[in-house]
Amino acid sequence: MAKQLTSRKENYSQWYNDLVIKADLAENSAVRGSMVIKPHGYAIWEKMQSALDTMFKETGHQNAYFPLFIPKSFFAKEASHVEGFAKECAVVTHYRLKIDEDGKIIVDEDAKLEEELIVRPTSETIIWDTYRKWVQSYRDLPILINQWANVVRWEMRPRLFLRTAEFLWQEGHTAHETKNEAIEEAERMVGVYADFAENWLGIPVLKGVKSPNERFAGAVETYCIEALMQDGKALQAGTSHFLGQNFAKAFDVKFVSRENIQEFVWATSWGVSTRLIGALIMAHSDDNGLVLPPKIAPIQVVIVPIFKDKEQLAAISEKVKEIVKVLKAKNISVKYDDRDTHKPGFKFAEWELKGIPVRLAIGPRDLENGTVEVARRDTLEKDTLQVTNIGEKIENLLIQIQDNIFQKALSYRDEHTYNVDTWDEFTNRLEQGGFVYAHWDGTPETELIIKGKTKATIRVIPFDEMHKEGKCILTGKLSKQRVVFAKAY
Amino acid sequence: MAKQLTSRKENYSQWYNDLVIKADLAENSAVRGSMVIKPHGYAIWEKMQSALDTMFKETGHQNAYFPLFIPKSFFAKEASHVEGFAKECAVVTHYRLKIDEDGKIIVDEDAKLEEELIVRPTSETIIWDTYRKWVQSYRDLPILINQWANVVRWEMRPRLFLRTAEFLWQEGHTAHETKNEAIEEAERMVGVYADFAENWLGIPVLKGVKSPNERFAGAVETYCIEALMQDGKALQAGTSHFLGQNFAKAFDVKFVSRENIQEFVWATSWGVSTRLIGALIMAHSDDNGLVLPPKIAPIQVVIVPIFKDKEQLAAISEKVKEIVKVLKAKNISVKYDDRDTHKPGFKFAEWELKGIPVRLAIGPRDLENGTVEVARRDTLEKDTLQVTNIGEKIENLLIQIQDNIFQKALSYRDEHTYNVDTWDEFTNRLEQGGFVYAHWDGTPETELIIKGKTKATIRVIPFDEMHKEGKCILTGKLSKQRVVFAKAY
Repeated sequence: MAKQLTSRKENYSQWYNDLVIKADLAENSAVRGSMVIKPHGYAIWEKMQSALDTMFKETGHQNAYFPLFIPKSFFAKEASHVEGFAKECAVVTHYRLKIDEDGKIIVDEDAKLEEELIVRPTSETIIWDTYRKWVQSYRDLPILINQWANVVRWEMRPRLFLRTAEFLWQEGHTAHETKNEAIEEAERMVGVYADFAENWLGIPVLKGVKSPNERFAGAVETYCIEALMQDGKALQAGTSHFLGQNFAKAFDVKFVSRENIQEFVWATSWGVSTRLIGALIMAHSDDNGLVLPPKIAPIQVVIVPIFKDKEQLAAISEKVKEIVKVLKAKNISVKYDDRDTHKPGFKFAEWELKGIPVRLAIGPRDLENGTVEVARRDTLEKDTLQVTNIGEKIENLLIQIQDNIFQKALSYRDEHTYNVDTWDEFTNRLEQGGFVYAHWDGTPETELIIKGKTKATIRVIPFDEMHKEGKCILTGKLSKQRVVFAKAY
Repeated sequence: MAKQLTSRKENYSQWYNDLVIKADLAENSAVRGSMVIKPHGYAIWEKMQSALDTMFKETGHQNAYFPLFIPKSFFAKEASHVEGFAKECAVVTHYRLKIDEDGKIIVDEDAKLEEELIVRPTSETIIWDTYRKWVQSYRDLPILINQWANVVRWEMRPRLFLRTAEFLWQEGHTAHETKNEAIEEAERMVGVYADFAENWLGIPVLKGVKSPNERFAGAVETYCIEALMQDGKALQAGTSHFLGQNFAKAFDVKFVSRENIQEFVWATSWGVSTRLIGALIMAHSDDNGLVLPPKIAPIQVVIVPIFKDKEQLAAISEKVKEIVKVLKAKNISVKYDDRDTHKPGFKFAEWELKGIPVRLAIGPRDLENGTVEVARRDTLEKDTLQVTNIGEKIENLLIQIQDNIFQKALSYRDEHTYNVDTWDEFTNRLEQGGFVYAHWDGTPETELIIKGKTKATIRVIPFDEMHKEGKCILTGKLSKQRVVFAKAY
């Protein structure tokens, strides 16, 4: 079994790395920090894209595409934005190579750019420079645009999917007439992300806002969804920012209002990335490999024939053809693995590793009995079913699996969520992992001291704890509500 | 009419630029040579992506994603490849900015990369470096992978969609056991492109191979599809390359064959880009704006109400709701433009400009008579139809329009295709535009002399002229077949 993974218990971090490689999701490339997303990993990303894209369009957004390169001077225009991103920017300085006298390829110094170009780490600046030309009057608003793109943020400690120098994402950038409308949009989109995380990825998330320390560089408010991984660490799974008029002021984007007054436009931006694949892995998978929720699985059902010779395979394939037809008619994606180069046991392990939710196995005795063996990836349970009404049966099973995966993650989170009121309990709980609800006096200073002492940060100031006062876990000062501390990815 | 275009007759090039801007397809950005693809333009690209992606998957390909950045040394490994791309490479030299003592944002010289990174102009090198790790045995072959990505090729004379520094495309990269299998793949994919161009974009194309001068840098053979624009200039609409073992040798990608011998892998690559949007515009559009073939139109039918007051609008909207339902049930994409801020005439012009294939207008009299006015974008003809069976009627009309657009382009091409045998006729014809079939002695030298004298190049060595011998138009030497000359984009 060359493909066996390190167990989670033994070494969680190694388990994750093993799984990503052995389930053929991604691998490191020759460019430090940049990954190759392999077909199975990319197919999962395509499923995510498709679901999200539909949700974005249903909420009135359109896709567009803005340049990869951003003039350096654009960054300077929004002070906190440049401060946030300056340290991780890839910079293009030349636009030509040449071959020197020794036949070596070198950068052509005659082709130096007058102004350096930054490879986008995020696109607020180039987009707001564009919106200036698009907006004159309130009639031009709102602008509701999303972009699917690659971005680059230089990473000193890269990890596949979780932190890579280049990653794929979507970034929404909207422009509004009023503050309230922009806030509504930012809240709507964090809601879309929460819906997607829970109902597609099967990952329960906390919704709320970030503390000022953790806010997006240039935002007035950052809304987020926060998920708990199986090692008790938190993972930020999506953010939506109310940007106020910061970028409109930096890029001079004004409009004539209904009252015929020149005003600055209100903005939001929001994004999720291929990091979600990391979240998906760490939320559900086990020591046998990936566990995919059916709604996000590129292949939902794999069928493996059990045969001794060609005649048996032919007879089984005949039956499988019917089953495939029935399943496809129900929009279930199915793969028939009839390779004769590998034994069934090898195939079982491979599809388990790759997280396919349902495996059907059919042998000669099944043919006689009109049965099929059904194995669930999430529980690893097996059952023998009559082939009659197999479509409905599998359809229902996929719904059950989707639900079970979510419920399991929810139970895990509930079991690892704590309300604490003493400093000792606080540090103990953080040490063991999980979401720790504690009171905080609301100051960045206190948050930084806590981070220094515990390595934990405020992951989210949750909406559902609002107005429940108490005393700060560190300073004893008045706290307006509990906030959620955790160590995080 | 602020939106009116320069006519094609007056200034074809200006007409094109006007159309791209005024139909809201794209615009220039602050970064020279990089465009912003606006929602309407991007929606057309999404339709293209969706159709092509399905065709790629039906021919056995999977999507994956490879890094944006390529180490400079990778380029040096395939000699003709680097020669072809060196002059248009954007080069990343640093990975950090900093704020200097005067508060200015500058490149941090302490963050200079040891080896410069090239922003991919195409991905053969990074992909073949990766394939080396994926291939050991003939059992690992073929690898059939496609990538949707952005690429950068520095452009000194940029034009929206046609030549931009950054563009979007797909690039297929396949690895095979045998030479024949790779050639078959390259030919299959140029066939897919021709099918897509003709049956989706409505653009008739010539299929064949490129002359050595026009071959892709690193290819053994370049297959292409070549289309004729309305100004008589040719446009290369897609290429598919048989790469031989060039990249396998450069990156040491070997496999153990069925005969248990170490052999180099055979390769292909193939791509089409957002340039196709330029082709689509120039093949079909007219002085009123864009003309979209229904199969590639993001909106196929627009419905405009003609009303004097709110009551009329309400009554019309009631009827329109039914029509929309009927059309959607037939998978026809439809937009109801019930804005009360603009007059019908304005809306008619706007949707004409944007190329929507069918416009329905409904006024109070139509309500009484159970009719609707139908306008075709391709012919600008209007007709009044009974609403009964409107679904079937529009469905058939869209098929007719798709066919008519193709037939019109085909007639145009036929009328501008010439067989010539004398130098005078050759230069005259090239001056006027069109595809000129002429004999060529097969040498790069002759092609270059002809290019120098006429500015025309060999666009394609067409398959269907093979083995029809003659005498070279320039040198009088033996020619194996006619080739197609034209001036080109």
